[in-house]
Amino acid sequence: MAKAAVIMGSISDLDVVRPAIDVLRKFGVEVEARVISAHRTPDDAHAYAAAAIDNGIEVLICAAGKAAHLGGVIAAFTPLPVIGLPVKSSMMDGLDSLLSMVQMPAGIPVACVGVNGGQNAGLLAVQILAVKYPHLAEQLKQYKAELATKIRLDDEKLQKELGL
Amino acid sequence: MAKAAVIMGSISDLDVVRPAIDVLRKFGVEVEARVISAHRTPDDAHAYAAAAIDNGIEVLICAAGKAAHLGGVIAAFTPLPVIGLPVKSSMMDGLDSLLSMVQMPAGIPVACVGVNGGQNAGLLAVQILAVKYPHLAEQLKQYKAELATKIRLDDEKLQKELGL
Amino acid sequence: MAKAAVIMGSISDLDVVRPAIDVLRKFGVEVEARVISAHRTPDDAHAYAAAAIDNGIEVLICAAGKAAHLGGVIAAFTPLPVIGLPVKSSMMDGLDSLLSMVQMPAGIPVACVGVNGGQNAGLLAVQILAVKYPHLAEQLKQYKAELATKIRLDDEKLQKELGL
Amino acid sequence: MAKAAVIMGSISDLDVVRPAIDVLRKFGVEVEARVISAHRTPDDAHAYAAAAIDNGIEVLICAAGKAAHLGGVIAAFTPLPVIGLPVKSSMMDGLDSLLSMVQMPAGIPVACVGVNGGQNAGLLAVQILAVKYPHLAEQLKQYKAELATKIRLDDEKLQKELGL
Amino acid sequence: MAKAAVIMGSISDLDVVRPAIDVLRKFGVEVEARVISAHRTPDDAHAYAAAAIDNGIEVLICAAGKAAHLGGVIAAFTPLPVIGLPVKSSMMDGLDSLLSMVQMPAGIPVACVGVNGGQNAGLLAVQILAVKYPHLAEQLKQYKAELATKIRLDDEKLQKELGL
Amino acid sequence: MAKAAVIMGSISDLDVVRPAIDVLRKFGVEVEARVISAHRTPDDAHAYAAAAIDNGIEVLICAAGKAAHLGGVIAAFTPLPVIGLPVKSSMMDGLDSLLSMVQMPAGIPVACVGVNGGQNAGLLAVQILAVKYPHLAEQLKQYKAELATKIRLDDEKLQKELGL
Amino acid sequence: MAKAAVIMGSISDLDVVRPAIDVLRKFGVEVEARVISAHRTPDDAHAYAAAAIDNGIEVLICAAGKAAHLGGVIAAFTPLPVIGLPVKSSMMDGLDSLLSMVQMPAGIPVACVGVNGGQNAGLLAVQILAVKYPHLAEQLKQYKAELATKIRLDDEKLQKELGL
Amino acid sequence: MAKAAVIMGSISDLDVVRPAIDVLRKFGVEVEARVISAHRTPDDAHAYAAAAIDNGIEVLICAAGKAAHLGGVIAAFTPLPVIGLPVKSSMMDGLDSLLSMVQMPAGIPVACVGVNGGQNAGLLAVQILAVKYPHLAEQLKQYKAELATKIRLDDEKLQKELGL
Repeated sequence: MAKAAVIMGSISDLDVVRPAIDVLRKFGVEVEARVISAHRTPDDAHAYAAAAIDNGIEVLICAAGKAAHLGGVIAAFTPLPVIGLPVKSSMMDGLDSLLSMVQMPAGIPVACVGVNGGQNAGLLAVQILAVKYPHLAEQLKQYKAELATKIRLDDEKLQKELGL
Repeated sequence: MAKAAVIMGSISDLDVVRPAIDVLRKFGVEVEARVISAHRTPDDAHAYAAAAIDNGIEVLICAAGKAAHLGGVIAAFTPLPVIGLPVKSSMMDGLDSLLSMVQMPAGIPVACVGVNGGQNAGLLAVQILAVKYPHLAEQLKQYKAELATKIRLDDEKLQKELGL
Repeated sequence: MAKAAVIMGSISDLDVVRPAIDVLRKFGVEVEARVISAHRTPDDAHAYAAAAIDNGIEVLICAAGKAAHLGGVIAAFTPLPVIGLPVKSSMMDGLDSLLSMVQMPAGIPVACVGVNGGQNAGLLAVQILAVKYPHLAEQLKQYKAELATKIRLDDEKLQKELGL
Repeated sequence: MAKAAVIMGSISDLDVVRPAIDVLRKFGVEVEARVISAHRTPDDAHAYAAAAIDNGIEVLICAAGKAAHLGGVIAAFTPLPVIGLPVKSSMMDGLDSLLSMVQMPAGIPVACVGVNGGQNAGLLAVQILAVKYPHLAEQLKQYKAELATKIRLDDEKLQKELGL
Repeated sequence: MAKAAVIMGSISDLDVVRPAIDVLRKFGVEVEARVISAHRTPDDAHAYAAAAIDNGIEVLICAAGKAAHLGGVIAAFTPLPVIGLPVKSSMMDGLDSLLSMVQMPAGIPVACVGVNGGQNAGLLAVQILAVKYPHLAEQLKQYKAELATKIRLDDEKLQKELGL
Repeated sequence: MAKAAVIMGSISDLDVVRPAIDVLRKFGVEVEARVISAHRTPDDAHAYAAAAIDNGIEVLICAAGKAAHLGGVIAAFTPLPVIGLPVKSSMMDGLDSLLSMVQMPAGIPVACVGVNGGQNAGLLAVQILAVKYPHLAEQLKQYKAELATKIRLDDEKLQKELGL
Repeated sequence: MAKAAVIMGSISDLDVVRPAIDVLRKFGVEVEARVISAHRTPDDAHAYAAAAIDNGIEVLICAAGKAAHLGGVIAAFTPLPVIGLPVKSSMMDGLDSLLSMVQMPAGIPVACVGVNGGQNAGLLAVQILAVKYPHLAEQLKQYKAELATKIRLDDEKLQKELGL
Repeated sequence: MAKAAVIMGSISDLDVVRPAIDVLRKFGVEVEARVISAHRTPDDAHAYAAAAIDNGIEVLICAAGKAAHLGGVIAAFTPLPVIGLPVKSSMMDGLDSLLSMVQMPAGIPVACVGVNGGQNAGLLAVQILAVKYPHLAEQLKQYKAELATKIRLDDEKLQKELGL
C-alpha cells in the first residue's frame, strides 16, 4: 500500500492541510500526519526526515507559512520527493511562504503547489505515487472525469440561472 | 528504464532547460525533449499529453515564460505528474511565469520549482521516478553526498582565501 | 445581430462576470454564456473555441482567477478577439490572474481588462462589435453621455453634501 | 480598407511600437502613426481622439510607459476600441505601465496586452478589424498556421541539437 | 484669501478626501470641491484645469483610485501645483493608484502623498500656500506643536497603561 | 528672488539630483545644494531643516535611496513644503525608496515625485514657488508650450521615419 | 539588571508591541516603554536616543508602520543595537514598513524582525542581552525547550484529531 | 576577545559577505568564517550551530540567497543572536531572500539587515558585542564620527562641483 507523510509547521495550518489528507485517504493512500516545526523542533524534523524512507514513506507534503522553511529542511535530509504547500498567513496573501518554499537552491528541489492549495498537494502526491502504483493511475483518470462532470453540471446550472 | 519528457514552450528556453536534461541523463533516465507551444501548437500539446502514458512517459517537465500556461495545459490532458519550470523572461524576474504556473486550480496540480531552476526540475523528476525505481533512490543518496562534499571543499577554499 | 460568448472557468466567477453579460444585453448583443474550464474540461474548451466562428460568435470574454489560463487556451484555438477578465481570487488582489492573462506570448494576444472589471469586459466587447455594427457605435456615444451625466449629478450632490 | 491608428507617448517608444505597425502593414491595414503625449500635448490628444471616427480610424493602439495615461486619455474621447501597449521603462519591468493602463474605471475600458507586446498589440487590432473584414479573418487563420509551422521547425531543430 | 481646489474622480472617494477638505478649512483656506472624472467627463476636466488660475485657484488636490489618471490629466492643463491623493480601491492596497499617480513623465509632475493620505494632501496644500501667505506659515508651526503635544499625551497614557 | 534647497543623502545621488538643480537654475531660482545624511549626519539634518525658513529657503527637495528617510526627517523639523525624490538604488527599481518616502504618517507630508524623477522634482519646486512669484508662473506656461513643441517635432520626425 | 527600551511611533501600535514587552518582562529584563514619533516629536527622539546609553539602556526596539523611519532615526543617534519591528498598517501587509526599516544605508544598521513580530522583537532583545548576561542565556535554552514541548503537544493533539 | 561567526550558504556569496568580515576585523573581533549549506550540508549546519556557544561564538551572521533558510536553520539550534544577511541572487533584487529570512515564526527570531548589506551585518554584530565589551562601544562612537566626517567632506566636494 502506498504511503505518504503530511507535515505541518504549526497545528494552526490544519485547515489548509486537511484537504490534502482527505484526497490521500480518498485514493486509499496510507497517511501519516505530523506537527513538526523546522525551527522549534529541528531535531524532530531531522530525525523524521532521515528515517522516512525506512519507515516506508514514499512522498512527503510539507505545509508552512511565512518564512516557510519546513519543505527545505525536510528535503535536506531525505532523497524522497517533497511537496511544498505554502500557507497564506502573513504577507501579500502568502507570497512570502511561496517564495520561501519554491526558490530552493540547486540540488535540493521542493515541488511547490499554489498558496493554500491543500487539495492539489494531495493530488500531486497521488500522481507521484501513481508512477509506481498502477491502480492509483486508474483512479486518477476517473478523478479527472469527475472533475469534468462537475464543470459540465455547473454549466447546465448556469444556463438555467441565466435563462439561456 | 525510467522515462521522462521535457517540453519547452519556445526553443529560446533551451538554456534554462538543458540542466534538467543533463541531470536526467546523468541518472540514466531516458529523455524525450520537445518544443511544443500551448498557444501556437495547442493541438500538438493536446495530442502529446494525451498519449504520454501510452508512450511510456512517467513524468513531464514543462518550461515556459511569461503567461506560462504550458504546465497547466499539459496537466489538463494527463494524470502523470507535471513539473513546472518557470522561465525568467519578462517581468519581475519571472514572477509572472511563477504565478502562472504554480497557482493552478484545485484538481490539476503542477509541481513548481524555482525560477530558471532547470537542475532542480530534473532532480525532482528523478526523485519522482525513484519512488518506483530503487536504483535511482540509491543514486540520489550518492548525489546528495556529492553536494555535501562540494560544499565542504568550498569551505576549505574559503579558509585559505581568508587566511584562516 | 451581433453575438458574443462569455466563458467562465468556474461558476463561482459568475458575480464578476454578470456585469459583462448585463452590458452586452443592454446593447442588444446576443450572448452565449458557458462554464468551461481550461484544465478540467480542456476538450470542451478546445471544441468550443474551434467552433466559435462557425457558431456565429464574433468576440469572446474569458473570465478566470489564479493561474488564469482560460483566455490563452481559448485564444489558441480561434482567430477571434478574446477578452481576458482576470478574477480576484487568491493572491495580491488578482495580480496572479492579471499576469497569467495579459503576459501572452507573441502571436496569441488576449485583450485584458482590469481585475474584476466585468462591466468593462462587456463594454470592450461592444466596442469591438461596433467596428462592424454602426448602431452599436451610436449606442456607445449615448452610453458615454450617460456616464458624464452621472458624474455631473454626483458633482451636484457633492456641492450639497459639503454646503458649497 | 481597414484603418488603424498607432499612438505613442514618446518617440523613444518607437522600438516597442514598431512590431505593431509591421503586423498591421503585413495584414494590409492602413496605419496612421503619431507621437502624441497625454500630458505634454493634451489638446492634440483630445482633438485626435475626438476626430478619430470621422477620420476613418476603426481601432487605436496607445503605447506608453510609467504613469501610462495615454490609453485612458484617448479612450475618454472616443467610443472606438483602444488597445493599451504598456512600455517597460522604469519600475519593476513595466508593472507601473501595466497597472496604469489596465486598471481603468468602469465605463472606459482599455484592452491591454503584455508589457512591450508590440506584435500582440498589432495582432489584436487585426483580430478586432477582422470582425468586420472577412479577408482579415482568413489571413489570421493562415498566420496561426505559420506560427505552428515555426514551432514545429524549432522542434525539429531541437531534436538535432540534442542528438535525439 | 488663499484658495484650493479638491477634485475627486468619483463621489465614492469622498471619505478619503474629506480629511483634506477639513484641514484646508481649519487653516482658513477657501475650498472648491468637485467630482470630475478624467475619463467620464474629460471635457470638464480640461475646462476646469485650464480655467483654474483665472478662477483664483492656487493649488489643486486630485484624488483617484485604480488607474488614477486624474492628477496627470489636470496637471496637463495647468501650471499650478497638483497634489495626487491615491485612493486604496482595488489592487495591493492602492499600489496601482500610487504608481499611476507618481510615475509621471518628465515635464508634468504630480506631488504624490501616501495612499488614502487625505489629511496629508490637505496639509501639503497648506504648506504650498504658506510659501505665499505668511499667516499660514505661522499656523503650520502651531499645528506641528499640537502634533507633538498629542504624541506626548499618548506617551503619558502609555506609562499609565503599562504601570510604568 | 525665489530660493530652494536641494539635499541629497549621498553624493552618489548627484546624477539623479542634477536635473532638479538645472531646472531650478533655468527658471532663475536661487539654489542651495547640500549632502546631508539623515542617518550619518542627523544633527546637520536637524540644524539645516530647523534653520531653513530663517535662511530664506522656501521649498526643499530631498533625494535619497533605499530606506529613504531624508524627506521625512527634514519635514519633521520645518513647516516648509518638502519634495521627496526617490532614488533607484537597490530593490525593485526603487520601490523601497518610493514607499519609504511617500507613506508618511498623518501630519507630516512629503510631496513625492516618481523614482529618479529629478527634472520633475525641480519643476514641482518651481510650481510651488510660482504660487508666490508671478514671473515663475509665466515662465511655466512657456515651459509647457516648449514641451508641446518638442512632442510635435518628434511627431514630424516619426512621419518621416515611417515614410508616412 | 539588563535594561531595554521599547519605543513605538504611535500608541495605536501598542497591540503589536505588547508581546515584545511581555517577553522582556518574562525574562526579567527591565523595560522602558515610550511613545515617541520620529516625525511629530523629532526632538524627543533625538534626545531620547542620544541619552539612551547614559540612562542604562542596552538595546532598543522601535516599532512603526508605513514610512517606518523610527528605527533609523533612533539608530542615527546611538551606537546601541536597534531592533526594528515593522507594523502592518497600510500597504501590502506591511511591505512598506518592512522595506523602510530594513533597507538602511551602510553604517547605520537596524536589526529587522518580521512584520508584526512583537514576540520575536522581544526575544531578539533578550538574545542580544544574553551575550552579556549569562543567566539570560540559560533562560533562553529553557525557552527553546518549552517551544519544542508545545509543538510536541500539538502533534499529540493532531494524532487524536485525525484518529491516527 | 569578542568572537563572531560568519556563515555563507555558498562560496559565491563571498563578495557580499566580505564587508561584514572586514568590519568585524577592523573592530578587532575574532572572526570564524564558514561555507555551510542549510540544505546541502544540513548535518554540518546542525553541528556547527549546536556547538557555537561552547566554541566561544557570541553572535552569528548568516548570508544566503533565494529560499534563504540558513539563518533560520542556524537559529533553530542555538540561543545566540543570529543576523540574517539576504543576498540578491534571483528574484526582484532579493525580495525572496529578504522575506525568507525576516518572516521567521514566533520563538525563533533572525535579525535581518538589508539586501546585500554586508557592512551593516558586520556593524550590527559589533553593536551586539558592544553590549558586553565596552571598548567596542567606544570604537562605535568613533566610527559614527567618521561616517559624519565623510558625509561632510562629500558636502564640501559638492559645493565645489556645483560652483556654489
